[in-house]
Amino acid sequence: MKIGFLQFEPLFCQVESNLDKLSSMIEKAPDFDLLVLPELANSGYVFSSKSELVKASEIIPDGIFVEKLSEITKSRNSVIVCGICEKKGADFYNSSVLIGPDGFIGKYQKIHLFDREKLFFQPGNGPLISYEVKGMKIGMLVCFDWIFPEATRVLALEGIDILAHSANLVLPYSQTVMLARSIENRIFTITSNRTGTEKNGGIELTFTGQSQITSPKMELLASTGVDTEEIKIVEIDIELARNKWLNERNNVLLDRRSKMYSKLLK
Amino acid sequence: MKIGFLQFEPLFCQVESNLDKLSSMIEKAPDFDLLVLPELANSGYVFSSKSELVKASEIIPDGIFVEKLSEITKSRNSVIVCGICEKKGADFYNSSVLIGPDGFIGKYQKIHLFDREKLFFQPGNGPLISYEVKGMKIGMLVCFDWIFPEATRVLALEGIDILAHSANLVLPYSQTVMLARSIENRIFTITSNRTGTEKNGGIELTFTGQSQITSPKMELLASTGVDTEEIKIVEIDIELARNKWLNERNNVLLDRRSKMYSKLLK
Repeated sequence: MKIGFLQFEPLFCQVESNLDKLSSMIEKAPDFDLLVLPELANSGYVFSSKSELVKASEIIPDGIFVEKLSEITKSRNSVIVCGICEKKGADFYNSSVLIGPDGFIGKYQKIHLFDREKLFFQPGNGPLISYEVKGMKIGMLVCFDWIFPEATRVLALEGIDILAHSANLVLPYSQTVMLARSIENRIFTITSNRTGTEKNGGIELTFTGQSQITSPKMELLASTGVDTEEIKIVEIDIELARNKWLNERNNVLLDRRSKMYSKLLK
Repeated sequence: MKIGFLQFEPLFCQVESNLDKLSSMIEKAPDFDLLVLPELANSGYVFSSKSELVKASEIIPDGIFVEKLSEITKSRNSVIVCGICEKKGADFYNSSVLIGPDGFIGKYQKIHLFDREKLFFQPGNGPLISYEVKGMKIGMLVCFDWIFPEATRVLALEGIDILAHSANLVLPYSQTVMLARSIENRIFTITSNRTGTEKNGGIELTFTGQSQITSPKMELLASTGVDTEEIKIVEIDIELARNKWLNERNNVLLDRRSKMYSKLLK
């Protein structure tokens, strides 16, 4: 199984240009089964008004991003996860879409919004579920969801092999924490982060790249620089993520003492 | 506030010798408010029979380890957490004790047993609670508990500032994961690991030291080598662990979407 990330710099509110760039990068990429793209890949990140969101967002699955990415996944018999600025009625969601060889499969609406995202997006309601496609069980999270161990854990309990983590990270913590998410759940994780600096309405953010892939054994399988634009694909043995046994007596999911965790739901 | 770890090599079933060594090391240590000692510091680790457990265990709080450590904490007006091989009736627990300026405070019985521990110990029932002493809110976990994010999270929700993590680690993963536990809960963690090799009943294990202290900002505040025997103390600002805000809009505990985590208790 070949899985990877695409790291690039989306340009703010330049939806068509972003789509052209992604398409061109993917066209040149080697074979892959699953490719993860950054958060808000259609729109960019530093919003200062709702009118910008109106301009840069799309309805899922009827927008041009999902349409074009579906063409790609159909022609390449592959799966893509991509962060999308979603418009739904009068509301906006920081979403991720899963698109397979037969087109659109499902979406995830980010449940833990970061900082000023709370000014523009509605908090999503997931769902935190596993999608099975091309022999892979895939779960989606977006960026700041990384800090809540519960989110990845729920997906692991739902059966995912691979966490597709689309991100627009500015801080340097997620990469280390994803190693923990990998081993504590015995899953692969793919973090696709963006690069570049955006300045708008008095706010300036620099995104820190360093996209990466981690294994159930807490290995860093691939990573890239802070400002490179590239696709990296690695070959994995997905069975590794289906064996939750650490040794003959310990299983990371079956050994959970859930009766002692009731505080988690309060 | 001064917190630290003691790393040493307990000798198998040599309770008095282990206690003498610890006492002597602590006597020479600089001032501390909290010092964490390794798992099973009285007994060693590689058991092959219950008779060895009978010999090396003690009743809590009436055994010689708790008695001697209480003398130390009283005379030094300080707090010690120590892993203890506990005898209770006909059963044994892999426990940790919290001892303060007024003596014994409480114990924690390891809830997630590792590998062959399941042959000799009963799984404990915690409790996963916070103890307040000398202005610190302290929670205890033992070794393999590190891999279950739920355990540390429950303690964080109970209000701990500092996780006292007594360990007998052989694998290299916990140190990285404790960095994640620190930032996802905004707490300090102290991992006190042991050193040395034990061989018994055809089993040989080498313990990997590398005890460490981490901060709510995911900093590694102190660490040591794989086979050093030493005490390290660092000065911390405990208020850091009481501020769960990452920025003006995000709080690592209040931002949890617990209604979406129900799968965790199933």
